[in-house]
Amino acid sequence: MTMNIGVIGCGLMGADHIRTLTTAVSGARVAAVNDADEGRAAGAAAEAEGARVHSDPFGLIDDAEVDAVVVASADETHEEFALACVRAGKPVLCEKPLATTSEACLRVVEAEMRGGRPLVQVGFMRRFDPSYLEMKRVLDSGRIGRALMLHSVHRNAGYPPALPDSALITGTGVHDIDIARWLLGQEIVTATAHTPRRSGLARPDFQDTRFLVLETENGVLVDVEIFVNAGYGYDVRGELVGELGSISLHPPATLTTRYEGLEGRPVARDFRPRFQDAYRNELQAWVTAGASGEVRGATAWDGYASAAVAEACLHSVATGSTAPVEIAPQPALYAPLAA
Amino acid sequence: MTMNIGVIGCGLMGADHIRTLTTAVSGARVAAVNDADEGRAAGAAAEAEGARVHSDPFGLIDDAEVDAVVVASADETHEEFALACVRAGKPVLCEKPLATTSEACLRVVEAEMRGGRPLVQVGFMRRFDPSYLEMKRVLDSGRIGRALMLHSVHRNAGYPPALPDSALITGTGVHDIDIARWLLGQEIVTATAHTPRRSGLARPDFQDTRFLVLETENGVLVDVEIFVNAGYGYDVRGELVGELGSISLHPPATLTTRYEGLEGRPVARDFRPRFQDAYRNELQAWVTAGASGEVRGATAWDGYASAAVAEACLHSVATGSTAPVEIAPQPALYAPLAA
Amino acid sequence: MTMNIGVIGCGLMGADHIRTLTTAVSGARVAAVNDADEGRAAGAAAEAEGARVHSDPFGLIDDAEVDAVVVASADETHEEFALACVRAGKPVLCEKPLATTSEACLRVVEAEMRGGRPLVQVGFMRRFDPSYLEMKRVLDSGRIGRALMLHSVHRNAGYPPALPDSALITGTGVHDIDIARWLLGQEIVTATAHTPRRSGLARPDFQDTRFLVLETENGVLVDVEIFVNAGYGYDVRGELVGELGSISLHPPATLTTRYEGLEGRPVARDFRPRFQDAYRNELQAWVTAGASGEVRGATAWDGYASAAVAEACLHSVATGSTAPVEIAPQPALYAPLAA
Amino acid sequence: MTMNIGVIGCGLMGADHIRTLTTAVSGARVAAVNDADEGRAAGAAAEAEGARVHSDPFGLIDDAEVDAVVVASADETHEEFALACVRAGKPVLCEKPLATTSEACLRVVEAEMRGGRPLVQVGFMRRFDPSYLEMKRVLDSGRIGRALMLHSVHRNAGYPPALPDSALITGTGVHDIDIARWLLGQEIVTATAHTPRRSGLARPDFQDTRFLVLETENGVLVDVEIFVNAGYGYDVRGELVGELGSISLHPPATLTTRYEGLEGRPVARDFRPRFQDAYRNELQAWVTAGASGEVRGATAWDGYASAAVAEACLHSVATGSTAPVEIAPQPALYAPLAA
Repeated sequence: MTMNIGVIGCGLMGADHIRTLTTAVSGARVAAVNDADEGRAAGAAAEAEGARVHSDPFGLIDDAEVDAVVVASADETHEEFALACVRAGKPVLCEKPLATTSEACLRVVEAEMRGGRPLVQVGFMRRFDPSYLEMKRVLDSGRIGRALMLHSVHRNAGYPPALPDSALITGTGVHDIDIARWLLGQEIVTATAHTPRRSGLARPDFQDTRFLVLETENGVLVDVEIFVNAGYGYDVRGELVGELGSISLHPPATLTTRYEGLEGRPVARDFRPRFQDAYRNELQAWVTAGASGEVRGATAWDGYASAAVAEACLHSVATGSTAPVEIAPQPALYAPLAA
Repeated sequence: MTMNIGVIGCGLMGADHIRTLTTAVSGARVAAVNDADEGRAAGAAAEAEGARVHSDPFGLIDDAEVDAVVVASADETHEEFALACVRAGKPVLCEKPLATTSEACLRVVEAEMRGGRPLVQVGFMRRFDPSYLEMKRVLDSGRIGRALMLHSVHRNAGYPPALPDSALITGTGVHDIDIARWLLGQEIVTATAHTPRRSGLARPDFQDTRFLVLETENGVLVDVEIFVNAGYGYDVRGELVGELGSISLHPPATLTTRYEGLEGRPVARDFRPRFQDAYRNELQAWVTAGASGEVRGATAWDGYASAAVAEACLHSVATGSTAPVEIAPQPALYAPLAA
Repeated sequence: MTMNIGVIGCGLMGADHIRTLTTAVSGARVAAVNDADEGRAAGAAAEAEGARVHSDPFGLIDDAEVDAVVVASADETHEEFALACVRAGKPVLCEKPLATTSEACLRVVEAEMRGGRPLVQVGFMRRFDPSYLEMKRVLDSGRIGRALMLHSVHRNAGYPPALPDSALITGTGVHDIDIARWLLGQEIVTATAHTPRRSGLARPDFQDTRFLVLETENGVLVDVEIFVNAGYGYDVRGELVGELGSISLHPPATLTTRYEGLEGRPVARDFRPRFQDAYRNELQAWVTAGASGEVRGATAWDGYASAAVAEACLHSVATGSTAPVEIAPQPALYAPLAA
Repeated sequence: MTMNIGVIGCGLMGADHIRTLTTAVSGARVAAVNDADEGRAAGAAAEAEGARVHSDPFGLIDDAEVDAVVVASADETHEEFALACVRAGKPVLCEKPLATTSEACLRVVEAEMRGGRPLVQVGFMRRFDPSYLEMKRVLDSGRIGRALMLHSVHRNAGYPPALPDSALITGTGVHDIDIARWLLGQEIVTATAHTPRRSGLARPDFQDTRFLVLETENGVLVDVEIFVNAGYGYDVRGELVGELGSISLHPPATLTTRYEGLEGRPVARDFRPRFQDAYRNELQAWVTAGASGEVRGATAWDGYASAAVAEACLHSVATGSTAPVEIAPQPALYAPLAA
């Protein structure tokens, strides 16, 4: 009953997934790995005890012993691997983004539709974070009334030097876009990108920060601060404001220390401590659902819709005015967002 | 050496000021009161022990025994009383707004300029709140680097039924506008008003909430949520985001209670507990400065400039796009904002 | 490589363990269950898919298909099941207390010594709670200097009616006793029990609350409040005070809600949400260690030593004065506490 | 109607009082000052504008222009100055301790009784701290049921080198003793002093820390941690535990900063920022009450009773066992503690 998993991409994210699947997920086994860097693949295989190393990612996908695939390779390769998994009829957990453009995402959606069933889960792991789940539960309970606004803050301590500043929106803010859609159960219909003063700590040609204002079908306003040279640490926070009350989401903190004139707590350097539980829960849910041929979490459609919103934000950056979100009609294959 | 003070307007705000001046401010004495409702004036005089009741507010202003005046009457009367005080050469603490339009505010500014010295202080009491003062001190220390963004939340439990929804901006949000100018030491140059989903708890013809995005001369982005049917209580919070760190401002809270399955603290119903210290400090500073012919805190110019920003916000509401702030050149009489 | 586990006792705790082992632990499978109530056993087996039901707990222990045993049955049965597991040479995770008296605990220790290797892990799950682990890590880093005091608060919303008030110490406070030994790396040498005013909500013959003051070998003072009719909820908190600083431990809280005049968060009704991660980590560590014949976490010796401290506390209750902790010399089989 | 005040002692505490009386208290004027160091007295007089300098403290007390006296001189002088004020029939605000022994305190009580009316207020300023007042209000509301326990933490960053370690109890912990009596409305009847591990940062012959366990007439348990080389800062916290809930008291904190990997807030170096409001409120209440011949706040009896508890604690330190509190019957002149 154990699911045999192949992992494509053994970098930071892939290695974390391999470790979690091997030591903390029930019913899973890493059976095969692949990486463009073969030495890195071999190291990952050693950690997974007995995983086979594939030099060809498509060979890994077609390996009869591989039941399901995790894609954690470079962003520009996601589309082709996701498509190959769909063709092979194997469940795939694809790290975000599903593809680098909404058009490319749509090709994955269309491939799934041809296959007739969802196989792709996109790695929007916040949907498995206990805090966001609880936030949604309180909203859905009616306790704070109908949602009016969602404030979202997304800060990274630093950013990979290779990335252009558009990645603030397509690679970073896309998490906030997806979680807003999921929390509110509504698609986003317009996007306005405001551009705050540039941080002097960013590269000279790099606009850090951005401030997005999004509007959902039913008029809820979502604002998103994205700041990726925040220096002091990784910080994801937010507040959902309803007619009767509000819910704030903070970094988890069960210890307060006091020394040298300061009372407080450390801020993590990156997303891993913050979302470690979310990643474990995501992988466990994917394995458990995969055994019965289902997809939980974000679908290929969610990957597409969030990419479409990100593109509208980039359009607003370019024009300086509000942009409509252009989005195809949603196929019946995908469950509608739960309002 | 005691300053004899006349108070015009003995409603909620005026009565609070009389009580504070009488029981908690050094060097002050309430010598005269006036209110459109004479009974209310008499009640206030009783509390102040020995204060004279004037039936004519201009008579109070001209009373030789009155050294200085507090204006806490209805908004539309502020201009004429402020002008009369300036003409009489007496220091005046005028509750916000200084006047109901920026044009009217400018008339007060011009009257002061003719007199050659500032006499008017506008009741932007947040400038005397220990939290905002500390926030400014930390910013000015360089500890969080240069400011990039300021997030501001302004919620009231409920709102006077007589007010139109434009008052969300001109009467409520104007506090956030002034404090942003003061904290950042910069004038605001553009304003965009976003309109979130209307709260079902507001009157049918009343747009609650608003979400303002303002830009300062040097590009700092200021966003302000205004929500006046928040129901759960009065809540003013904010975060100032700098290149190296950030500072969040919360409601004061020194007690945490736990009962019936809840750990937390009460949220005040209105602004008075939150800003009680700020009002006392404001009155004390005004009395102390008045003795030496100075004005501390917000000047008539600040009253004017904040009103001009509020008007640009209303313009953006009307047009749906970003509006420039139209503001006259600042006279030398007023100290520039300290950047 | 999967460990086949037999679970004795399918009540609240046992059922939780079965669910966790089946759905959230890597490398584990519940192969057999037993409960004094056969219907309850059958229900638990169904949840574990394919687990065999044993009507005789000793039969379960001797089942050749069972690699390791979880004991979650009534407290008074722990000793005999633990002894049987030791005789059978099988790893056992025994819920606290190891046995109902320190003398009985010592019999389990002696049985293990005869066998020549530790097989018993005692369910002091706090040692696997991320908060306590982080507290210990900060202490061991030297950041707060040497420990001077540990304040511990242990509150339950309510208490099983069948239990005598001595269970406040032997069954409830024993968690605080063990975690103090583990955090501080020191045995406790004296115990003083103070008796606060009785809560009127406790049964008439039941002394709720107790306040214990314990002293370690090197003089650190540990105080423990135990209050089991706290009503408002389950609440475990504490503070470790060092020469240079302190560390406070709170309930986890990533959401703050505001409604109806209150800002705060719910307090859980019982220990499960608070220590869910600790239980999962405990089970995972036990399974992983068991595969290589090791015991991590609390040993039989820890079960014995903590019981000895609890008995000294009861002695102090009886006499009204400070009692020495009577404890046998520690066998070399068990690693000393890490100071 | 202005009260003319003489201040004896212009050190840290006295200078603070002079500044507060001069700039932030209604109806007060510092008319005369005295200090053993005449230069210091002259400096203080300058700040108070027009205050007369007395070289003889008894001369200041007898000065016809002085309506009331603040005693902020060295502890061992308090008794004689308080007695002289009582003889002169003038209200006196005497910094704690009222006198250095409970016997000496009783002499002041007896002098007041001969005079037939209370004139002495002891500087237990916590009774005027908004947090403690609110804590008492919530307790008295019945919201948390009857009090069962009070945990109190009292930490100083450092301590005057001249003081012996008994001052931890008689000079520092005495604040916690008084506030416990006041909050709970009960006298303390037994005291047990526990002695934690000595901080290596204290002087070699100095026992820092102490941990007191006190019992009130109706059985409420009060524990007090006193730690005066805490290094990281000044920290006063506590928790009042009732049958239905609890109330925690924290340092005030309206700002949270994030920089360099830390989220938190500064801890003050000494008591002044923490209790600045309490001192101002205390002085205002004393001035206002003095005008009508009353004493609010702690009386000479409170000074005596708290000193008696401190002495029982020292007795427990000496004997290692619980000590009864020896206290004279309370004269009718003093209002009983409000239960």
